[in-house]
Amino acid sequence: MNYPIIAKILGRVMALEAVLMIPSMITALCYGETLLWYAETAAVAAVLAVPLSMVKVKHHDFYAREGFVSVALAWVLMSAVGALPFVFSGEIPSYTDAFFEIVSGFTTTGATILTDIEAMSKGLLLWRSLSHWIGGMGVLVFIMAVLPMSEDRSMYIMRAEVPGTTFGKLVPRIRTSSAITYLIYIALTVLLIILLCAGGMPFFDSINHAMATAGTGGFSVKQLSIGFYDSAYIDVVVSIFMLLFGVNFSIYFLLLMRKFRDALTDSEFVAYFSIALGAAVLIALDIWDEYGGFWHAFRYSLFQVSSLMTTTGFATADFIYWPAFSKSVLILVMIIGASAGSTGGGLKVSRVIIFFKSAAQEIGKQLNPRRTSCVRINGKTLPAATLHNTLVFISLYFLITFIVVALVSLDGYDFETTFASVVSCISNVGPGLGPAGPMGSYDIFSGLSKWLLSFAMLVGRLEIFPMLILFSPATWRRS
Amino acid sequence: MNYPIIAKILGRVMALEAVLMIPSMITALCYGETLLWYAETAAVAAVLAVPLSMVKVKHHDFYAREGFVSVALAWVLMSAVGALPFVFSGEIPSYTDAFFEIVSGFTTTGATILTDIEAMSKGLLLWRSLSHWIGGMGVLVFIMAVLPMSEDRSMYIMRAEVPGTTFGKLVPRIRTSSAITYLIYIALTVLLIILLCAGGMPFFDSINHAMATAGTGGFSVKQLSIGFYDSAYIDVVVSIFMLLFGVNFSIYFLLLMRKFRDALTDSEFVAYFSIALGAAVLIALDIWDEYGGFWHAFRYSLFQVSSLMTTTGFATADFIYWPAFSKSVLILVMIIGASAGSTGGGLKVSRVIIFFKSAAQEIGKQLNPRRTSCVRINGKTLPAATLHNTLVFISLYFLITFIVVALVSLDGYDFETTFASVVSCISNVGPGLGPAGPMGSYDIFSGLSKWLLSFAMLVGRLEIFPMLILFSPATWRRS
Repeated sequence: MNYPIIAKILGRVMALEAVLMIPSMITALCYGETLLWYAETAAVAAVLAVPLSMVKVKHHDFYAREGFVSVALAWVLMSAVGALPFVFSGEIPSYTDAFFEIVSGFTTTGATILTDIEAMSKGLLLWRSLSHWIGGMGVLVFIMAVLPMSEDRSMYIMRAEVPGTTFGKLVPRIRTSSAITYLIYIALTVLLIILLCAGGMPFFDSINHAMATAGTGGFSVKQLSIGFYDSAYIDVVVSIFMLLFGVNFSIYFLLLMRKFRDALTDSEFVAYFSIALGAAVLIALDIWDEYGGFWHAFRYSLFQVSSLMTTTGFATADFIYWPAFSKSVLILVMIIGASAGSTGGGLKVSRVIIFFKSAAQEIGKQLNPRRTSCVRINGKTLPAATLHNTLVFISLYFLITFIVVALVSLDGYDFETTFASVVSCISNVGPGLGPAGPMGSYDIFSGLSKWLLSFAMLVGRLEIFPMLILFSPATWRRS
Repeated sequence: MNYPIIAKILGRVMALEAVLMIPSMITALCYGETLLWYAETAAVAAVLAVPLSMVKVKHHDFYAREGFVSVALAWVLMSAVGALPFVFSGEIPSYTDAFFEIVSGFTTTGATILTDIEAMSKGLLLWRSLSHWIGGMGVLVFIMAVLPMSEDRSMYIMRAEVPGTTFGKLVPRIRTSSAITYLIYIALTVLLIILLCAGGMPFFDSINHAMATAGTGGFSVKQLSIGFYDSAYIDVVVSIFMLLFGVNFSIYFLLLMRKFRDALTDSEFVAYFSIALGAAVLIALDIWDEYGGFWHAFRYSLFQVSSLMTTTGFATADFIYWPAFSKSVLILVMIIGASAGSTGGGLKVSRVIIFFKSAAQEIGKQLNPRRTSCVRINGKTLPAATLHNTLVFISLYFLITFIVVALVSLDGYDFETTFASVVSCISNVGPGLGPAGPMGSYDIFSGLSKWLLSFAMLVGRLEIFPMLILFSPATWRRS
């Protein structure tokens, strides 16, 4: 393992985190709050950054192992330091709670332990939203977009940090790819801020909700989430933008390159919108009576489906009171999740497609053991290694879910609450069911459960392997 | 597809079912009940058997496809006719309920829609228990043990009907293998009947409970299940025998051949007992206080773990009132299930082992993409096709569970009840949680849900592929 180079990368991450305190400081200035907490955190980050950056790099060997380890450690360290403003302020006095909150932020989960959001300082609220925005696209992808790094190193980091089965190189140079992706990301975020302001949402709220939507995070500055504004216009705008941020960003690149046909016939893109619309219609039919009319029901069902499928986690309705069928459909779309290469979580639509095709292939093989066949997506044959990886990924996802459910159930909440909260965290959604529902809080859980759920969120965001690799003895063995 | 040969096999199955009415008739005679319902059912089976057996077979081609289709159709037909005695008697007037009950019998699930078991006729109770005993080892395996059949045909039928990743040929001829397996099965069942009688259980109850234990079914002749006898001796005997019937039967064959070392170091055998004991200890610690002492708690926890892990489903305690952690552990062992080549259900311990080894291999591959590695079990390298099949199986198992949960939740029961009932049915366990718990009944569900749960039970018993293959267009295409 090339420790010096990992130390250098962690040094850059800390330097970035110090810089990321600036927006909260500006907010604090505007609202006449103290700058102290952010300055203290920036100081801690800088103090860590200096020695890490000064480590002497002897050789530049950088392989998959180094990629996974540096990404996993970067996320844990970012979160460990990112929790400090909450602790320094005393507004979240427990470090466990603060760590949970910021992991929830960076992983774009949006599960909160707060019970009175409006009482928080504006600077801290902005820090929560900003953590979504940075975590959505990836901390190291951001660093790569800004600072030069060797191609090899970039590739292994991208593989470990960007969600999905394959990472799309948009242009030959990876650094240029991440820069383009970030530009699209910024453009869509700014457009959303403008549209929200136009709908009458205050400027500060618009910035926060836009960042939380872009990262498919789900932290709101209001206890009632987007439901607070009770505006059909805002509901529709946010529904659409949540869906847009759950699309693979290479689709936008294709659209910019005027390759409309490739973009609009992409099998993940088509499946993603079909599932979202199908689920929204099914739920609208189920809650029709309660909302007195299909279209009114559809407004709420579309919002909740967009929110949970893209794993954002905003709410306009307290769906814990919806009928059991609707809740089951919501849990299903939570598990399916958004597209690969988007800011969303869950299994990812592309993995679900690969899984269905593998299952069909396996049935064919059972009928005709001697026939060879292959799984094709968008006209290309998938390598056997990708198939295998996808199946292991899906099985591990369920296994980790069940183990965490077993341990969190020690808290003694009913099965629905425990199960939905764990699925919500590992899929980076946010709200669960029961007392941890969209209008509730994760405050109800014990300290142990909060650490377990934080682990689940990181496992979900980094797509399982980087976190497991941290705990594998093979990783730390001398080669 | 070779339809004539499939028709012939179905004809034999119907002939067998007519014969299987005899034990119920004898019971009815002994207790002075009417023979009419069983005679009518035997007549229906015979009327179907005659034309099916008279179909002219043109050629003897018999491949995987024919194997899957004949096994799947045999199970559906057996259940369709096997439901008749309940309907003719009027003791289960609804055909949906009767079908659910007998599918639950043949698949060795043991979920019941009855609410007053002691009120049933003795002949019908025996028919329920006998269905467990026949279903446990397999309907067609039984026919193969008794009637001559070509080797090729036997192989494809064994593959489709015997649970597990690979089917163990004990001796070169498959027919001899199934005969040996059935002899071990009969010997263990008779031994259990003697031990139960020795413990003071009435003879009729002993026969029924022994057959239900042997098939890992779980139907009891008492509303309170084994808890009715409130005897530590009976609890321990049944706990041990449930575990014994969850062992791969080829282990017993190895023991008979005096290959003790091979038998006792088999990795599935070791893992199976370790998981069972570990889970029983964990639960005993959790319920210690309630039962006032570790050993008293362990008596109940061991019974429930043996019962749910082997997917039998007997109960000595109403575990729906146990703490949430214990319930989560019970759901976990339900999903893991018994050993391959046993009469139990669930994913099977060997699949769980293969999955863990695949996951470890995948982590290694991520660290070192160029290194080739393989998964070994009991010192033998597993073929890639088996690995792939296992992973598809596990993913499909969870997927079908979630889809059936979504549909059954239309009935509006809470998530714990719905989820546990579906897992219980697809794993062929029997009792769920909530109102469908061990002292409850599946009577609460709607007709649609009962059909869906019947489907889930068949999917679980036949290990997914035969049932899915019935619905695959490729199966019915002319080749």
